[in-house]
Amino acid sequence: MGKTNGRDGSERALDEAMEDRAAGGGLLDRRIFLGGALGGGVAAGTGLAVSTQAEAQGLTVPPWMKAPGSNFVGYGQPSKHEAKTVRTFAHAPNVPGTGSARTPHHLLNGTITPNGLHFERSHSGIPDIDPDAHRLLVHGMVKRPLTFTLEALARYPMESQIAFIECGGNSLGLYGEKPPQGNAQALHGLVSCAEWTGVRLKVLLAEAGVAPKASWVLAEGADSAGMSRSVPLAKAMDDAMIALYQNGERVRPSNGYPMRLLLPGYEGNMQVKWLRRIKVMDAPAMVRDETSKYTLLTKDGTSQQFFFPMEAKSIITHPSPGLTMRGKGLYEISGLAWSGNGKIARVDVSADGGKSWARAALQEPVLSKALTRFRMAWNWDGGPAPLQARATDSSGYVQPTRAKLIADRGAKAFYHFNGISSWSVGANGEIVHVYA
Amino acid sequence: MGKTNGRDGSERALDEAMEDRAAGGGLLDRRIFLGGALGGGVAAGTGLAVSTQAEAQGLTVPPWMKAPGSNFVGYGQPSKHEAKTVRTFAHAPNVPGTGSARTPHHLLNGTITPNGLHFERSHSGIPDIDPDAHRLLVHGMVKRPLTFTLEALARYPMESQIAFIECGGNSLGLYGEKPPQGNAQALHGLVSCAEWTGVRLKVLLAEAGVAPKASWVLAEGADSAGMSRSVPLAKAMDDAMIALYQNGERVRPSNGYPMRLLLPGYEGNMQVKWLRRIKVMDAPAMVRDETSKYTLLTKDGTSQQFFFPMEAKSIITHPSPGLTMRGKGLYEISGLAWSGNGKIARVDVSADGGKSWARAALQEPVLSKALTRFRMAWNWDGGPAPLQARATDSSGYVQPTRAKLIADRGAKAFYHFNGISSWSVGANGEIVHVYA
Repeated sequence: MGKTNGRDGSERALDEAMEDRAAGGGLLDRRIFLGGALGGGVAAGTGLAVSTQAEAQGLTVPPWMKAPGSNFVGYGQPSKHEAKTVRTFAHAPNVPGTGSARTPHHLLNGTITPNGLHFERSHSGIPDIDPDAHRLLVHGMVKRPLTFTLEALARYPMESQIAFIECGGNSLGLYGEKPPQGNAQALHGLVSCAEWTGVRLKVLLAEAGVAPKASWVLAEGADSAGMSRSVPLAKAMDDAMIALYQNGERVRPSNGYPMRLLLPGYEGNMQVKWLRRIKVMDAPAMVRDETSKYTLLTKDGTSQQFFFPMEAKSIITHPSPGLTMRGKGLYEISGLAWSGNGKIARVDVSADGGKSWARAALQEPVLSKALTRFRMAWNWDGGPAPLQARATDSSGYVQPTRAKLIADRGAKAFYHFNGISSWSVGANGEIVHVYA
Repeated sequence: MGKTNGRDGSERALDEAMEDRAAGGGLLDRRIFLGGALGGGVAAGTGLAVSTQAEAQGLTVPPWMKAPGSNFVGYGQPSKHEAKTVRTFAHAPNVPGTGSARTPHHLLNGTITPNGLHFERSHSGIPDIDPDAHRLLVHGMVKRPLTFTLEALARYPMESQIAFIECGGNSLGLYGEKPPQGNAQALHGLVSCAEWTGVRLKVLLAEAGVAPKASWVLAEGADSAGMSRSVPLAKAMDDAMIALYQNGERVRPSNGYPMRLLLPGYEGNMQVKWLRRIKVMDAPAMVRDETSKYTLLTKDGTSQQFFFPMEAKSIITHPSPGLTMRGKGLYEISGLAWSGNGKIARVDVSADGGKSWARAALQEPVLSKALTRFRMAWNWDGGPAPLQARATDSSGYVQPTRAKLIADRGAKAFYHFNGISSWSVGANGEIVHVYA
């Protein structure tokens, strides 16, 4: 740790900390985040703040302090200066609403995705559902079928869970031979995270009385696609939730208003939005989205069906394409990691194309099946640098390299891409996607 | 627990669970939430779902399934059917923007407040700040004053913290002689919770180099009120944050865009929005909002100044005024608890006016200085019932009764009301605020 210096024994001179390397390429020891390491008697400083005539500059009274500001509104909106912080979307030709909208992770920080920016995948647009007329039916292999109104569901015991949802098709461009060019939003924007609140599905299934031979349920949505998926009964009786609230407020229309199925850790397509029906069965229903789609074509030409949990993965959001770096010195490398099989145990970061790795700090609380923010300080030397992150989850699973993933699966797998991705920082500060 | 029944040894018949009392007035054992207690062989059910002709009713194809839905948008909004889920606000006569807007807690669930509904207290409206022109000055008793642009701050190591903010004036109507009539929003809506992300203030103070004799800092906002507060240096060097992001996206204009001071657990007024200046001092600045306001008038006629942490408190949000109950049977009693001095250790609920209490389930993760959701199942007998909640925090502090709070402080205290509040459920299902 070197000598201590300053007000607190745990603090070190910043210029000393800026040299305390954790791995190659300028990655700094993660203790810089902990216990006030960025403190004490600073000699040179980071060089990021302006210190000449700082006082005079800072005390200038700007125009917005010279007149009263605007009034309250009932439902607030982001600053007009953040108009670029929006989802980008593409839909099938001549079919508005069939496609996906992506979260701008390069412009966000933290772990919660605000509701207006949660990613969206829809198969026939967003239905305009009257919540008072909407019903949830639980039927099939049950002692008695039950129909629930929203008002009835609101009286049941509820629970909240902070969970990521990732589309099975997120990052699929990285199976391609050449690295697709785009930013974190375009390449990896089909994953988001929210606090979901609702009723455990098992509570409703228990009240309906599941037949002993039942082993699957079918979940059906009330969009005009009638989007449906089969879910193992074991998952339905575990942490599956009928989600009514998203980050405190009612689930947004684009995410299933007035209710959606939440299957923490499973591929997004199964977490049926606008949920209207749970049918208990003794076999999967073999619907379109689990036969012709959302299966994994393997090397021998057969398809792997029912590949549910999204495996451990990480992406670097800062720096990333579009966030041009301005001059050498201190930066934070930060990003998101997640696993459908539990908690993130560690994230390692490399700034030399995988030759050396340093362990990143994980933002507490680290929650199971939720986005986890990792952070690492970096003293950029101003030269070309390839950046990578590698997640390990609580099961011991390590995010594979892209080469290993493709060697295992073949290049036609299409869904569930979770290989390590790479950004290349150029000497001009611009960042592009590469295969490192 | 009674006999087990059904698929799983941990499950019990629902009708049996509905009789498993934890305290008077129909409060149910909290184990109903845990380990699938609401499961097993149900005889009568909750009576909440419709079971006659359920299948036919549930399989009717509603109009919104007969045509494609709407297209994607860049920044999503809530359902048009949720138009009542808005902040309510009041401002000083002829002074738009000077006053407060309140969070509709009776319409929300979970612990995160969506950004559009975070409470707001402003002293001269919301300034329209150009983020590229905004500066943060750190000066006063420092080795060298520093001025930070938003771009410079974005390069520092960041951290995230889920934290509540409560206005010092929240719930002040409850100091009055007669119980003010209003819902949870009107009476207690000046508290909210978000995931805040930014740079620890201590990092910037350390780089500026704090003089050994310094003991306070002044924080100044860039609104036209120049709203300012003095903050002990110990807090500034502890968990104080320059917050740049709120629930993932840039801090909203109403909450301090492009940056605010976050002082977890302290009264909201100190967490200066639109932050433009931190001045290091050796005494408090004695500004208007810590002399003529935000002090606690005590029984002997003197004022208690510098009363910073918001002490442990809880409110029941469901049921609460405006959420009329429809018939006896199962309901969830749920609400929010928080403490500026640490974590919530327990919440007890009473349905008989404080004669008996039952321990509520706390939603995990329970985080320090964050809103904590508590939940308890309740079998309402259809008769009049007074509902109360009482929070205990990790310091051992117990939320006092209103009578005790006023006996200790006198009735003119005005700020920091944290006594137990009471809802009275009538036989007609309507709920009003009472002093129980």
